[in-house]
Amino acid sequence: MSTFGTAFRVTTYGESHCKSVGCIIDGVPPGLALSEADIQVQLTRRRPGQSKLTTPRNETDNVTIQSGCEQGFTLGTPICLTVPNQDHRPHDYSETDLYPRPSHADYTYMLKYGIKASSGGGRSSARETIGRVAAGAVAEKYLAEVHGVEIVAFVSGVGPIQISDTSAAALVASVTRADVDATAVRCPDAATEALMHDEIVACSAEKNSTGGIVTCVVRNVPSGLGEPCFDKLEAQLAHAMLSIPATKGFEIGSGFAGTRMRGSEHNDAFAADSPGAALRTLTNHSGGVQGGISNGQPIVFRVAFKPPATISQDQPTASYTGEPGVLAARGRHDPCVVPRAVPIVEAMAALVLMDALLLQNARSATRQRLPPVPAELKAIKPF
Amino acid sequence: MSTFGTAFRVTTYGESHCKSVGCIIDGVPPGLALSEADIQVQLTRRRPGQSKLTTPRNETDNVTIQSGCEQGFTLGTPICLTVPNQDHRPHDYSETDLYPRPSHADYTYMLKYGIKASSGGGRSSARETIGRVAAGAVAEKYLAEVHGVEIVAFVSGVGPIQISDTSAAALVASVTRADVDATAVRCPDAATEALMHDEIVACSAEKNSTGGIVTCVVRNVPSGLGEPCFDKLEAQLAHAMLSIPATKGFEIGSGFAGTRMRGSEHNDAFAADSPGAALRTLTNHSGGVQGGISNGQPIVFRVAFKPPATISQDQPTASYTGEPGVLAARGRHDPCVVPRAVPIVEAMAALVLMDALLLQNARSATRQRLPPVPAELKAIKPF
Amino acid sequence: MSTFGTAFRVTTYGESHCKSVGCIIDGVPPGLALSEADIQVQLTRRRPGQSKLTTPRNETDNVTIQSGCEQGFTLGTPICLTVPNQDHRPHDYSETDLYPRPSHADYTYMLKYGIKASSGGGRSSARETIGRVAAGAVAEKYLAEVHGVEIVAFVSGVGPIQISDTSAAALVASVTRADVDATAVRCPDAATEALMHDEIVACSAEKNSTGGIVTCVVRNVPSGLGEPCFDKLEAQLAHAMLSIPATKGFEIGSGFAGTRMRGSEHNDAFAADSPGAALRTLTNHSGGVQGGISNGQPIVFRVAFKPPATISQDQPTASYTGEPGVLAARGRHDPCVVPRAVPIVEAMAALVLMDALLLQNARSATRQRLPPVPAELKAIKPF
Amino acid sequence: MSTFGTAFRVTTYGESHCKSVGCIIDGVPPGLALSEADIQVQLTRRRPGQSKLTTPRNETDNVTIQSGCEQGFTLGTPICLTVPNQDHRPHDYSETDLYPRPSHADYTYMLKYGIKASSGGGRSSARETIGRVAAGAVAEKYLAEVHGVEIVAFVSGVGPIQISDTSAAALVASVTRADVDATAVRCPDAATEALMHDEIVACSAEKNSTGGIVTCVVRNVPSGLGEPCFDKLEAQLAHAMLSIPATKGFEIGSGFAGTRMRGSEHNDAFAADSPGAALRTLTNHSGGVQGGISNGQPIVFRVAFKPPATISQDQPTASYTGEPGVLAARGRHDPCVVPRAVPIVEAMAALVLMDALLLQNARSATRQRLPPVPAELKAIKPF
Repeated sequence: MSTFGTAFRVTTYGESHCKSVGCIIDGVPPGLALSEADIQVQLTRRRPGQSKLTTPRNETDNVTIQSGCEQGFTLGTPICLTVPNQDHRPHDYSETDLYPRPSHADYTYMLKYGIKASSGGGRSSARETIGRVAAGAVAEKYLAEVHGVEIVAFVSGVGPIQISDTSAAALVASVTRADVDATAVRCPDAATEALMHDEIVACSAEKNSTGGIVTCVVRNVPSGLGEPCFDKLEAQLAHAMLSIPATKGFEIGSGFAGTRMRGSEHNDAFAADSPGAALRTLTNHSGGVQGGISNGQPIVFRVAFKPPATISQDQPTASYTGEPGVLAARGRHDPCVVPRAVPIVEAMAALVLMDALLLQNARSATRQRLPPVPAELKAIKPF
Repeated sequence: MSTFGTAFRVTTYGESHCKSVGCIIDGVPPGLALSEADIQVQLTRRRPGQSKLTTPRNETDNVTIQSGCEQGFTLGTPICLTVPNQDHRPHDYSETDLYPRPSHADYTYMLKYGIKASSGGGRSSARETIGRVAAGAVAEKYLAEVHGVEIVAFVSGVGPIQISDTSAAALVASVTRADVDATAVRCPDAATEALMHDEIVACSAEKNSTGGIVTCVVRNVPSGLGEPCFDKLEAQLAHAMLSIPATKGFEIGSGFAGTRMRGSEHNDAFAADSPGAALRTLTNHSGGVQGGISNGQPIVFRVAFKPPATISQDQPTASYTGEPGVLAARGRHDPCVVPRAVPIVEAMAALVLMDALLLQNARSATRQRLPPVPAELKAIKPF
Repeated sequence: MSTFGTAFRVTTYGESHCKSVGCIIDGVPPGLALSEADIQVQLTRRRPGQSKLTTPRNETDNVTIQSGCEQGFTLGTPICLTVPNQDHRPHDYSETDLYPRPSHADYTYMLKYGIKASSGGGRSSARETIGRVAAGAVAEKYLAEVHGVEIVAFVSGVGPIQISDTSAAALVASVTRADVDATAVRCPDAATEALMHDEIVACSAEKNSTGGIVTCVVRNVPSGLGEPCFDKLEAQLAHAMLSIPATKGFEIGSGFAGTRMRGSEHNDAFAADSPGAALRTLTNHSGGVQGGISNGQPIVFRVAFKPPATISQDQPTASYTGEPGVLAARGRHDPCVVPRAVPIVEAMAALVLMDALLLQNARSATRQRLPPVPAELKAIKPF
Repeated sequence: MSTFGTAFRVTTYGESHCKSVGCIIDGVPPGLALSEADIQVQLTRRRPGQSKLTTPRNETDNVTIQSGCEQGFTLGTPICLTVPNQDHRPHDYSETDLYPRPSHADYTYMLKYGIKASSGGGRSSARETIGRVAAGAVAEKYLAEVHGVEIVAFVSGVGPIQISDTSAAALVASVTRADVDATAVRCPDAATEALMHDEIVACSAEKNSTGGIVTCVVRNVPSGLGEPCFDKLEAQLAHAMLSIPATKGFEIGSGFAGTRMRGSEHNDAFAADSPGAALRTLTNHSGGVQGGISNGQPIVFRVAFKPPATISQDQPTASYTGEPGVLAARGRHDPCVVPRAVPIVEAMAALVLMDALLLQNARSATRQRLPPVPAELKAIKPF
C-alpha cells in the first residue's frame, strides 16, 4: 500500500491532477531541528526543468510543514508535508485516452481499480515520488546530524553509455552531491557524462527514450542495522528501490558480476586497526551488508531504470477495447529519468536506514539494561 | 523481522542447532485440501544430499502439520509446520570459532545481538529457509489449484557459465519442474549444464566456491496483483528474493540489460485476440508487471547468488578481537548454492503472489458490490 | 502510532496550533461516490459551538479532499483529507505553562518526548479527532451504501444521571441520528436529557466538569467480521474506543452487568425464521459478537468518558520542576465531552467494521474459488 | 489475526484437537536468561484441574523451547514454544454437533470459515490461550528483571459476589501472586472468597455457569509507555483483554464509576518528593495512564468475563439448518472461568507493556543522541 516502514513510517498520497501531493511521517525523533528549507533542497533537486534534458513543466514544488514541528524542532508527533499541484483540474478527455500506453501503468491500473483517473496511471505518476523525497530528507537530516551518514547517488549508465568500473570505484570512495550536481546528467565523470548527454539529446531528437542506471553509496552507516530473516537490510533496500517507478533491477556490492567470482576472491577478509578495535573489511564485495546486517562499511548498490514508456513517436498498439490502432502521444516527455531519479534513490535509502536504525536502537537499548551474558557466550560490546 | 506478508502471513523460526525449525502460516483460505505430502515434495527438493554436487549432510527434513487442518482440509486458522533438527546439541567450541568467517554473518550477528550462537550465524543458517519452503508450498497449492499458476525456477548461471539468451527464452516459455530436476545442476539446457557441472566440481576440488544465477518464471498469474505505490509487485518480489541468504541482486523482465534499450524497442505493445478480450502484450520486456501491477503475462525474474562464504581453503583474516590470523574451516561445504536455491526462490515467489492475491481479492470483492461508475470514467470489468 | 487498520488504513496528523489537521485513508474501494459534503456532515456534528453546552470556540472545520477522487468517485488510491486550523500560531507562553494540568497529557507527553508543544498535550488535543471523524465518514459511506449499515451513538449517562435500562433498550432498537441531534445533550430520552442538561449547566457554573457514557448501536452488520484470535471484533472495537481521548472503559453486550448472570440466562438461543435460513438469536446479550466474530445481530457497546481534566477552578498541584503551587486555568472549557464524542464513537466504529469487512471479503472471495469441502465437514454457504 | 505486537511480536497457533499449541515470539531482547521453568510456572497456573472448581481434564501442558535460546540465554532470534495436545484425534461426530452452542463461537466460525472443526469453535477453544501465557511469561521475565515490574491479577467478582472497594484498593496496593494462589478462587479476600466459592459450587450443582471480574495491577511501570494517538496504552490493554475468550468489558482506573465524578475530584494532583524529582500523583483515578502514556503510577484495570456458554443443562435452540430443538451438552465444563483467567490477563498485560517498552526505548535512544533542544522548549530529562 502507500505506507513504508515500521518504526519510521511514511504514508504518501496524491496523483497528477489532484490538489496536492505529500506525506505523513510518523516516528520522527523528537527534538530534531527541522525547517522547510531542509526538505526543499531535495525537492528542488527532484523537480523537472533543471536542465535542458528534462521536461520544461514548471512546478516550483514548494513544501509546507503542516504539523509535528514547533519553533524549528520536531515534536515526535506525525509530520504532514504537502506540496500543491499547480494544475489540479482533471485532464481533458482526448483521443489518446482510447489507448493504454504500452509499458505504462494505464492498463494495469484499470485492471486493478476498474476506474480510470483522467491522468492515466494516477498514482504511477512521477509526482507520487514527491512525498518520498520529502520524507527522505527528514530521515537524512537525523542520520547526517547524529551519525554523519552521507548518501550520494549518481548516474552511472545511460543507454549503452556506462561509467567504467575504475571510475565507479573512485566515485564510490569520495563523490559528493556537489560533484553530482555539477553536471546536467548527474554523472560526475566528465568524459562519460558528455557521451551520456549526447545520448539523451539524440533520444530526444528521435522522439524516443532511453534507460539508465543509478549507483548509490552510503557512508558512515552504523553497524548492526537490518532485521533477519525477511527484513534483511538489502531486502529492504531492494524493496525500496523497486518501488520507484520505472525500475527493473537492483544489485548490492558485487551484484550480478559477483556470481561469476570464486569465494576465495569474493570473501571480504577482516582486519582491525588495532587489537580490540571494531573490525573492518579489506574489500567490500558485500556492499556493506553481511547476513542482512550492516557491517559498518559503505553500502553500495545500483538500480536499473527502463526507458520511459511515454514517447512521442507513433506506436502501433491496441485500444482498451482491443481494437488495433496507433497511439500518437503528444507533448514533451523526459527522454531519460535517471538524472531526476538521483534524489529519489537517496530518499528511499534514507527511509530504509532510519527505520532500521530505530528498530536496532530499540534492541540495543533494551539489551543494555540486562546483566552481561557469560564470557563463553562471547558477547562483544553491542552497537 | 521473521514475519512476511500482510494477509497471507508467514512467521518462521529456528536455527542450526535448536530442536526444530518451521513456521506458522496465518491467512490460509479455509477448505483447501492439504496434506504433509503436498509440503514434503518441496522440502525434499531443498534438502542437501540430492546429488554429488551438494553436501552429504543427511537430514530427512520431515514436516509435521501441527495445527490448522482437519481430515485433510485447512480450517482457515494458523497452520504450524515443524521439521526436527537431527542434531540439536549446541556446536562444540573449536579454534575456528575465534574467527568470524569472512563475508558470512558471524560478525554482523555479533554486532547486532551481542551474543553468539554456537553455530555461528544462527538464523543466517540455510536451515532457516525450511520454514519458507514449507509455507511456499501451501501458497502454491492454492495458486495452482484455483488459478493454474505455475512457478518454475532453474539455474541459468554458475560462475562464468551462463545460459544463452535464446535458451533462456525457450525455457521461460515452457520449462517444467520435471525438466529442471532431470539434471544435477537444475539447469535444463543440457550442454550448458554439463559445463556448469564441471565448474562446480572444479570449485569443489580446489576447496573453493562459486556464485550463480536463478531464473524464475511464473505463468498464469492473475492480473491486477501488486499494491501501489510502495508494495508494487516487483518491489515485493525483490524484497522476497533479497531476503534469501547469499543473494546480491534481482532483476525483472529486461532488468539491467533493459537500461540499454530505447523506449520504442522496450515498450510492450498491446493486442487482443478479439475485440473486447483482455489485452495481452506482444513482447514481455516488462516481465509481467507494469506500474507495479501484474498484467497477466508471465512474470520473469532473475536472482544473483554470491559464492558461498564458507570455504575449506585457508583464509588470512582477523579474529573477533582484531588479531590477524588464518581461518582454516574444516568439513565439507556446498561449493555452489544455486541448485538448492531453486525451490526457495519458487517458495518466496508463491508467498508474494498469494499475499497480493488476497489483498486484490479484498478490493475486487468489495468494489463489485458497489453500483457501476459512469461510463465516462471508463470502468472495465474488474479482475 | 498514528495509523489504524490493516486493509482500510487511516493515518492522522495534526495538533492544536499547527497549520492543519487531517488524515490519509488507504484502501478505500474504488468507484465509491464521495464528496466533501459526505464528510463535512460528521465534522460539523463534531465541532464545538453547536449548543450552549460546549465551548464557543468557533472553527468551521471545512474539509478538503486533496487526492484520491475524481469527478465525484474514489479512485482506490490514498485519500488525503485536510482541515485548516484557524489559529496556527504557537500558543503564547504563560504562567500556567509552569504546571502540567492534573490528569491531562501535559506531563506524560513531556516524559515521552522530552519536548513540550506550546499547546500542552499536542496530539492529545481534541482536534486530533478530526482526522478520525473524516475517515470514519468515508468508511460509513461504503458500509451504508452497500450493506445498509446504520451506526448510531447517543449519550446514555452524564455524571450521576443515567438513562434507564428500558429506555436504553428501546433506543438501541430504533434510535436514529436525527433523534439524537434533536437534543443539545444528544440523549434522545427527553426526561433524562433534561436532567443531564441541568447537570452540565451546574458543572459549568461551578467551573467544574463531569464524565459520561456514550452507547452505540450498529445495525445490519454483515456476519463473519472479526479476526480470531487477537483481532476479535470486540477487541478491535475496544482498542478503537479506548484510543479516543478521555475514555476509561468499554463494554459490549451484557458487559460488566453480564458478569452477574448465570449462563442459562445469558446464553442467546438460536432460531430461524424458516428452515435453512440464517440463524438469528432470540436475545442479544452477546452484543452482536460471538467468539470475536459478528453474528449478524446489532452490535451494541458502551464507552465511559471521564470528566475533562481542564477546569477553571484553582487546583493545588506541583509544577514541572516539582514545586507545589496552584494551577489556575483560564478560558472556557467543555464541562462535558460526551455530546461531542458521539460522532467520534461512530467514526471509530465505522473504521473497525470497514477494515474487518475488507479482510473477510478477502477470505470469502478467495475461499469461494475452491471446490466445496466434503459434506461431513459441514460447510455452510459462506458469508 | 493471530499475531500481536509490533516490536515484541507474538504469533500463536493451535486448537483443541490438533497435535500441539504454542507460539513464536519475535523481538525478544538477546542475552536474557530464560529456561522452560520460567515459562512453565504460568502455564501450570493456567491449566485446568488445579482445584475442585475446575474441570478435571488432566493435561500437563509441558512447554518446550524449540528455538532462539542457547545455554540458557536468548539469542534475540525467534523463540518457538510448543505444548503438545494430549488428545489430538479429531473429535467424534455426535448428535450435539447438530446444534451450534448458544453464545459460543460454533456458529460464527462456520459463518466466517465455511468449515467446521470437529471440536466446534476451533481457535475459540481455551487451549488457544496457552501460547499467550507462554509468551507473556517471557515478556514478564524481562520486565521483572530489568524494571522490577510486578503484574498481579486476582478475582474481584464472581456472579453477584463482588469484593468491596476498600478491599480492592488494599489488594491493589500490596497483593502478591502467592496471596492470590492461596485460595481456590484466586480472590485473596478470605471472606469474599468463601462466598464466591459457594457460588461456583452452586452453579456447578445446577449444571449452570457464572461470570466474573478479574482485577489486575501492574507496579513499577516505566513511564512514557504508549503510542499516541491510536495505540494509547489503555487502548492496547483493552485490545489485549477483549481478545481473551469470554470477555465483555474493560475499564482502567476509575472506569465506568469515574463517569459519575466531577473533574475536581477525579483529577490526580501532582506532587514531588523533592524539587526536581519525578512527579507522582496523589490519587490514581487515571489508573497509571494519562493521555495514553504511562505516568509511573500503578496501572490498574478490570476485565469482565461472561458466564461460560457451554453448560450441561438442556437448552432450547435451533440446529445449524434452522430446525428448533434442544441442545443437551454432555461432559463436565468449567462453571466459572475467572480463576483460570488470572494468568491469561497477566500474560496479555506483559505482552502490551513489553511491546510498548521496546518502541519507547527506540524513541528515547534515538532522541538522546541529538543535541539538547533550547531551554524555552522545556525539555526535561527523557525516560
